[in-house]
Amino acid sequence: MTVAAVMEALPGLPWTTDPALVRQKSRDFFWYSPVLKRQLNKVTGEALVTPRNEAELRAILAAAYAQDIPVTVRGAGTGNYGQAMPLRGGIVLEMTAFDRVLWTKPGVVRAEAGIKLIDLDAHLKRAVGGELRFHPSTKRTATLGGFIAGGSSGIGSTTYGILREPGNILGLKVMTMEAEPRVLELRGPDLQKVNHAYGTNGIITELEMPVAPAWDWVDVVVAFPTLMGAARFADSFCRMDGVAKKLACVVPAPLPQQHFRAWGAKVPAGHSVACIMVAPPFLDILPSLITSHGGTEILREPSDAAEVPLYEHSWNHTTLQVLKTDKSITYLQTLFPAPNHLELIAKLEKMFGDEVLLHLEFVRFGGTVCAFGLQIVRFTTEERLAEIIRLHEENGAPIFNPHTYTLEDGGMKRVDQDQLDFKRQADPKGLLNPGKMAAWDDPDWKPGKQQAVHLYETDYEAPAEVLE
Amino acid sequence: MTVAAVMEALPGLPWTTDPALVRQKSRDFFWYSPVLKRQLNKVTGEALVTPRNEAELRAILAAAYAQDIPVTVRGAGTGNYGQAMPLRGGIVLEMTAFDRVLWTKPGVVRAEAGIKLIDLDAHLKRAVGGELRFHPSTKRTATLGGFIAGGSSGIGSTTYGILREPGNILGLKVMTMEAEPRVLELRGPDLQKVNHAYGTNGIITELEMPVAPAWDWVDVVVAFPTLMGAARFADSFCRMDGVAKKLACVVPAPLPQQHFRAWGAKVPAGHSVACIMVAPPFLDILPSLITSHGGTEILREPSDAAEVPLYEHSWNHTTLQVLKTDKSITYLQTLFPAPNHLELIAKLEKMFGDEVLLHLEFVRFGGTVCAFGLQIVRFTTEERLAEIIRLHEENGAPIFNPHTYTLEDGGMKRVDQDQLDFKRQADPKGLLNPGKMAAWDDPDWKPGKQQAVHLYETDYEAPAEVLE
Ligand SMILES: Cc1cc2nc3c(=O)[nH]c(=O)nc-3n(C[C@H](O)[C@H](O)[C@H](O)COP(=O)(O)OP(=O)(O)OC[C@H]3O[C@@H](n4cnc5c(N)ncnc54)[C@H](O)[C@@H]3O)c2cc1C
Ligand SMILES: Cc1cc2nc3c(=O)[nH]c(=O)nc-3n(C[C@H](O)[C@H](O)[C@H](O)COP(=O)(O)OP(=O)(O)OC[C@H]3O[C@@H](n4cnc5c(N)ncnc54)[C@H](O)[C@@H]3O)c2cc1C
Repeated sequence: MTVAAVMEALPGLPWTTDPALVRQKSRDFFWYSPVLKRQLNKVTGEALVTPRNEAELRAILAAAYAQDIPVTVRGAGTGNYGQAMPLRGGIVLEMTAFDRVLWTKPGVVRAEAGIKLIDLDAHLKRAVGGELRFHPSTKRTATLGGFIAGGSSGIGSTTYGILREPGNILGLKVMTMEAEPRVLELRGPDLQKVNHAYGTNGIITELEMPVAPAWDWVDVVVAFPTLMGAARFADSFCRMDGVAKKLACVVPAPLPQQHFRAWGAKVPAGHSVACIMVAPPFLDILPSLITSHGGTEILREPSDAAEVPLYEHSWNHTTLQVLKTDKSITYLQTLFPAPNHLELIAKLEKMFGDEVLLHLEFVRFGGTVCAFGLQIVRFTTEERLAEIIRLHEENGAPIFNPHTYTLEDGGMKRVDQDQLDFKRQADPKGLLNPGKMAAWDDPDWKPGKQQAVHLYETDYEAPAEVLE
Repeated sequence: MTVAAVMEALPGLPWTTDPALVRQKSRDFFWYSPVLKRQLNKVTGEALVTPRNEAELRAILAAAYAQDIPVTVRGAGTGNYGQAMPLRGGIVLEMTAFDRVLWTKPGVVRAEAGIKLIDLDAHLKRAVGGELRFHPSTKRTATLGGFIAGGSSGIGSTTYGILREPGNILGLKVMTMEAEPRVLELRGPDLQKVNHAYGTNGIITELEMPVAPAWDWVDVVVAFPTLMGAARFADSFCRMDGVAKKLACVVPAPLPQQHFRAWGAKVPAGHSVACIMVAPPFLDILPSLITSHGGTEILREPSDAAEVPLYEHSWNHTTLQVLKTDKSITYLQTLFPAPNHLELIAKLEKMFGDEVLLHLEFVRFGGTVCAFGLQIVRFTTEERLAEIIRLHEENGAPIFNPHTYTLEDGGMKRVDQDQLDFKRQADPKGLLNPGKMAAWDDPDWKPGKQQAVHLYETDYEAPAEVLE
């Protein structure tokens, strides 16, 4: 019942046991959260393996199953809730060698789960003039499988909504954790069993994704005297169904001025900005839209030409850019539901002032335009953070708590019965990424109920918290 | 000051003066409206000409200007408010020889205004795997210029909204009616000066349009026991931003059963239908969506394989299909504004019963999903029709009255100052399609104010009202 026994059974595989490397590959961006940092900082796996094909993957899962060894799957480790961290030790399974594009046909691509998003988009542009409909701001590093299993939305959600919405994933192949691992193909509503399940109920090996037309996107930054001016502009822009767009992000003063190295100095003092991505044929609509909202364009350049593309100032990269110069902040993830999202944003701006800076992403969600907040929070205590969360929720802005590592607490605060049932079939021993699906460990789990998890930890020196 | 003088000045052009042919080419589908039929049935032009290039067009406009002869431009004459009818006689100018595609680049096409929509889409599919974002249900006959100058929305508005929304037209070239006709290029917000102006303030010669990916669309018909069941299904479907779709049309019982020859017999008695067009990769989402709304799928076939494509049962083709078997009906054009469109539809269904059958098109409009109504109305008197319109408007459902031939009365019931100002520059003598811009003829025009128009009429036998 040891990792060593699994390794001995499979000597031909690329194993790593170097504790520094294993520990590094046992981490993600959990340390964005002071709460998770306190809880998870010492977590480590025992060995790392990077299977090169389905046969190797099958052999690893079967051997680990036989030995009751936990397996935590990992793409690039850019998750930010400790999703890919092996809470109970065991094997860290890196999927990056599953990096092939299998086929493309008009509007659809099928690829292996470990492919990097940037490589997939480059392939699509070259081969069919296409690209993924949307991608996380971690596009340059993250994997496709990690995005599906751990992410939710991103650059392009202005148009297509979030991963969970029908049509944004078309099919996937998943390998089970059993004595004889099976390979299952899921399509249609069944996809939700595995989508955003943190790798707790199967290893995704292939994904079939819709493909959008690739534009030569143009980054545009517009400054506004008030946050609400920028928000209203972004909202109006997002409503323009005739305009091909990919981003409608609002970053409030003084964040751009203080933290955005590339162009923050161009933003007038006290001004907030809207960061948008537009396809070239639609740039003509901007001047009148900007003027009518009282804005001033301060930057326009092709996304591809930018040293740091605008999307790396958006979504959770806004948090990252700020953390680079100010370690005292943390963040939230919030839904401002339609149709009153603008009113709610105005109210919360007044309520919290500088303590909670309303970084917003305007998106489609459930068929309407609304805003997600990835607010930058001046961190004082865990109690105050919990209170800020409570005040948001009391005012009608649900928080997807990024300061917890379980699926349920981070998500809809309810058990996803389909995912739980699928785990019963696909991972009967509960060995896949243990500790992340609260309802598996505790059938009486209710929102707010604390979990007692025994963590597998090390006192080895912690790796650097890399910010680039 | 005669048409004959213009013709003499330009002997090399393809003129027609045969009164039967000229009268036929002086008509459109105005007779859908019993009101317009009474008013306009005898209208005719005096001569027809079909210029083959910009030089010929320029010569015609200059000569007609010199002689003070009205010019009414025409594409395929599928408009349905008498838009292309030469109220004051003069020259009917047919644009169908302007039929070339000028260029395509990724996501954009530029073509001459007289090209048939079906030819343009075939070209785009062949050349770049693309198609127009949306088209009227008259795609098989209508021209691009006629759609822009006279239409508004159609199959694809589920995704992209209407022509007036920014980005749905990218550029256009327009020739003025002056002593020396000028050619102007309009882009961005300036496009609205000429978009949907019925050819009253310039002749559009070229259009630059955004191109969407071409899918091998699949026609699907789903039957529901109630109209509201079909409406809720179509609304939910239209909200699915992840699903590539082109149509979400609802046709209430008993219209399909009584009037749709191709598949009406398959619809259970008393059932209403939703007619949708979906791209093949997204068909997987249908079974659960249909079941959850209590529907039954009764037809599925590739759009291209259908004898009568589903879109020719939608938009104003629903009216056409019904008129084929029942000449006693007419129709309305209505906006059911978001977010209460479904409630409003339910209320009006109760209010009017069989007198007003709620044929609906679910679309995006102003960034939200809502419904347009092209209701089938059992016609009794013009007074009752006016009362039905009034009752709709009192209940919050604005009517775009299809029983009037002026821009203002058919549209927003206000003067479009930009279009009027542009006419002052582009058509200083007011010779282009006279009688259609009410505010030109009557500076004191107010909604509801009747116009005294002297019509140029003939007693020649009226052509057949062709229904295919
Ligand atoms: C700066 C920053 C910006 C971000 N921006 C966004 C954003 O815009 N949108 C967004 O949605 N997220 C965002 N994230 C979160 C994260 O980057 C994305 O979810 C990313 O797509 C994860 O990909 P990855 O390959 O790094 O996955 P990992 O972090 O390695 O894994 C994520 C989860 O998926 C599981 N997993 C990985 N591969 C598989 C597989 N093959 N089968 C089954 N499970 C698997 C892991 O176990 C883990 O639970 C951001 C994070 C950071 C740090
Ligand atoms: C059965 C039926 C279904 C329909 N469905 C739809 C629908 O789904 N959506 C929709 O929007 N409309 C619809 N319509 C209305 C009409 O078909 C469309 O507007 C169509 O696009 C008109 O094109 P056409 O070439 O026939 O234009 P025409 O009828 O010839 O002309 C329309 C108007 O445009 C002007 N015009 C034409 N060419 C030019 C030019 N080159 N420059 C300037 N002005 C010009 C004419 O003067 C006229 O005022 C429908 C009509 C019918 C009868």
